[in-house]
Amino acid sequence: MSDQNNIAYDKLAERFTKLHRLNHLSSIASWDQAAMMPSGSNQARSEALAELSTLTHELLTASEVGDWIQAASEAPLDSFRQASLREMAREWRQASVIPADLVKAKSLVTSDCEHAWRSQRPENDWQGFSKNLEEVLRLTREEASIRAESSGVDPYDALLELYEPGMTCKQLDGLFGDVKNWLPDYVQQATERQKSSDYLMPEGPFAIDKLKALGLEVMTLLGFDFNRGRLDVSTHPFCGGVAEDVRITTRYRDDDFIESLMGVIHETGHARYEQSRPKDTLELPVSYARSTGIHEGQSLFFEMQLGRSREFLSLIRPLLLKHLTNGKELPAYQLDNLQTLYRQVNPGFIRVEADEVTYPAHVILRYDIEKALINGDMTVADLPDAWNEKMQKYLNLSTQGNYKDGCMQDIHWPLGAFGYFPSYTLGAMYAAQLFAAIQTSIPDVHSRISSGDLSPVFDWLKDNIWSQGSRYTTSELMVRATGEDLNASFFKEHLKKRYLKG
Amino acid sequence: MSDQNNIAYDKLAERFTKLHRLNHLSSIASWDQAAMMPSGSNQARSEALAELSTLTHELLTASEVGDWIQAASEAPLDSFRQASLREMAREWRQASVIPADLVKAKSLVTSDCEHAWRSQRPENDWQGFSKNLEEVLRLTREEASIRAESSGVDPYDALLELYEPGMTCKQLDGLFGDVKNWLPDYVQQATERQKSSDYLMPEGPFAIDKLKALGLEVMTLLGFDFNRGRLDVSTHPFCGGVAEDVRITTRYRDDDFIESLMGVIHETGHARYEQSRPKDTLELPVSYARSTGIHEGQSLFFEMQLGRSREFLSLIRPLLLKHLTNGKELPAYQLDNLQTLYRQVNPGFIRVEADEVTYPAHVILRYDIEKALINGDMTVADLPDAWNEKMQKYLNLSTQGNYKDGCMQDIHWPLGAFGYFPSYTLGAMYAAQLFAAIQTSIPDVHSRISSGDLSPVFDWLKDNIWSQGSRYTTSELMVRATGEDLNASFFKEHLKKRYLKG
Repeated sequence: MSDQNNIAYDKLAERFTKLHRLNHLSSIASWDQAAMMPSGSNQARSEALAELSTLTHELLTASEVGDWIQAASEAPLDSFRQASLREMAREWRQASVIPADLVKAKSLVTSDCEHAWRSQRPENDWQGFSKNLEEVLRLTREEASIRAESSGVDPYDALLELYEPGMTCKQLDGLFGDVKNWLPDYVQQATERQKSSDYLMPEGPFAIDKLKALGLEVMTLLGFDFNRGRLDVSTHPFCGGVAEDVRITTRYRDDDFIESLMGVIHETGHARYEQSRPKDTLELPVSYARSTGIHEGQSLFFEMQLGRSREFLSLIRPLLLKHLTNGKELPAYQLDNLQTLYRQVNPGFIRVEADEVTYPAHVILRYDIEKALINGDMTVADLPDAWNEKMQKYLNLSTQGNYKDGCMQDIHWPLGAFGYFPSYTLGAMYAAQLFAAIQTSIPDVHSRISSGDLSPVFDWLKDNIWSQGSRYTTSELMVRATGEDLNASFFKEHLKKRYLKG
Repeated sequence: MSDQNNIAYDKLAERFTKLHRLNHLSSIASWDQAAMMPSGSNQARSEALAELSTLTHELLTASEVGDWIQAASEAPLDSFRQASLREMAREWRQASVIPADLVKAKSLVTSDCEHAWRSQRPENDWQGFSKNLEEVLRLTREEASIRAESSGVDPYDALLELYEPGMTCKQLDGLFGDVKNWLPDYVQQATERQKSSDYLMPEGPFAIDKLKALGLEVMTLLGFDFNRGRLDVSTHPFCGGVAEDVRITTRYRDDDFIESLMGVIHETGHARYEQSRPKDTLELPVSYARSTGIHEGQSLFFEMQLGRSREFLSLIRPLLLKHLTNGKELPAYQLDNLQTLYRQVNPGFIRVEADEVTYPAHVILRYDIEKALINGDMTVADLPDAWNEKMQKYLNLSTQGNYKDGCMQDIHWPLGAFGYFPSYTLGAMYAAQLFAAIQTSIPDVHSRISSGDLSPVFDWLKDNIWSQGSRYTTSELMVRATGEDLNASFFKEHLKKRYLKG
């Protein structure tokens, strides 16, 4: 390896270290904006974040970065540095390929569209919204076409690449096409089956400080490192902050403990991934989380695979009694009742409220539609009818004229984040496949979980996923961890076992 | 005015707007570091803040900024822009005059000294500390000499300029020299006098949430804008954040409500100054707070002039009862008792715990010593004896061998912040002079305060000080507001009236 090329790699590492540090401040300020900031400060905060974003974009796309990538790629690098260079180059290419005026135009149009959407949605104002969305779509299609041309793939694949590197429509059509076949039948069977099992709702009101204490104790059980992270409250729960200081949020209701608790468990899955990334290279893209779908895979592993298992429910049942009933045994807190409660299947309009079984229908519907919008096979004007038709087909619900609970419900499209939705169901599939592999690798995993010994599960995830960062492609990562690339049958089997047989 | 020079001024305003926005993120991340961040994240946060600080220093000291200042200064500007240019040039000059390697060396040495001081102080380790402090002093003297040469003033005056622009040793010697003459006698008379008045201590324990609710209600009474600010907890209370989002902190003790309440009142004074700066030019130095002393003047106006007045105590007495005694009248909460309690004079070792009367002794002692250290009239080795001698003289206390409660008690010197201490007593003097002017301008101000109508006081401060930013020099500001430059006699009269006659 020539010295000169070593220098180029080192220069890149130095630039990405600088970006890592500056992005630290953006992440904390964004967390603060959602969890702490009073509303009157919003404009100043947004301006400050935009200013730093402009600056980091300049630092990332500066011409010398391209030169360093070129120089570093011409030298023999060891395999770690090859992977590191590949990931730095990906970041640089994705940021550099779009002309500055398109970046700015999209930022303005999406900011306006999202802002207006916040009041248009409650007013069911499709006319007003669709005009803005057309602009967002127009610029996103322009972006997709530039990205596609630069990387030699189809436009929608180029958008997928932003969230799920390496994923293609072709692979997704296979994965989701299969689900579309069996899902409507599963939903029907599951709802049929649960009609025969009554359950009791635990009765509130639940004091917020009790719900918080419960959440904190469950986070501790799940290995959250409070020396490098916090739990707070925000309107829309999320996992933010930085790997060295992970900030998760939830929201509390005094009439229900399940939403906040499952939210905390979900975000703790995201948090542990971030907290367990390789410490010595945290600042380099090669240590970043592999993809949005793999990230969601960790949160859904925690929430769905582990969190709703009978073993885990039996493990946290004493904590529920401790914090919510003053230690008293009540019928609603019996294990069988909790299990029934945690496994209700209810087809509904709203994705974010959907259960594990119906959720993929919401995602696949959006995938089909956004792919058609990007490819030009559908216009914004066609959107409400297409939505209604698919909701009828998958979940037997009509959204005719009900835009606010239909195609206006999500923030993703107003923000121009086309290509993101598939990650949710990919995450559910990754989670199921990972848990299946763990069951093979640790035959007594279920009894370990019931007994409170979660460390074998977390050690496995840490070794196979969390500590791997972006060292391998997603496909390689899954093959190394589970013996095969993503396969929807694990998810199908999981649902069958839990909802049709369990 | 030529177009070219307009352009230069506009370029400067644009650059300072960028800096204002980037500093917004540093301020919020620093507040978070003190009030929210778990300790394990400290290194990453410090690295992130240092990275942005390097970047903003580059943006401020870039050669084009000097060119713009030169070009703008050659054109006729209106008086507002003249003031604005003067303040931008001051910021630029103060940042540019010190060579980058000295900035870096001082940053490393002070960081080491402060870090070591945190354990050396409890261990009373003068030997260890003095070695580090010598290095800090050496570099600070180098800095002072460069600043002095560049601005044509004496070295210590050049350091004063960083905190109290326009202030000189000559003026300070006059202001403080007078205080040194009458203070020891005042302290003795006040302590003598209070021997005859017994008082009752309100008994705890006080619940933290009650203390917080009390603090929030008093902040509301004092006009704090919660739509652009918050109250939180930190080990060392401060006023941070940004003008658009002011973050104040306090700390609670369950055996005492006065410390947290007076802390909240003090920080609310700082906060209202920031929240009331001119909105249309917030991002420009011409709107910044005039000086550290004027800032402290606002907090001490709130805490000492207003907050410990009989009228204000009578106003908040119902709030004390509401939050601390469940509304019950108790002897310790009678107005006379509260007043006695709030006006105790107790000579002690520790500056931050000092009362209004003895506080100036602590400051003047430090001023005399640090001036001699910077001028080379004293060495670090002489420091403990000089400290002991002055403590004996001013407060009749010996610090012989007691370094931790003597010359090792403050964080300022470890941080290299020589020239800062005078601001505390200047603040007390500004506050007394401002309140005297208000009493002349609003003859019924005392009855207004007792009746809860604080708006005339705040309107006066807003018109005369807060909304003026740095439009005028400190001296001009005081003359415009009170008819004369800073005059220690108002402070002397205030203490006499409250502690020797009141």
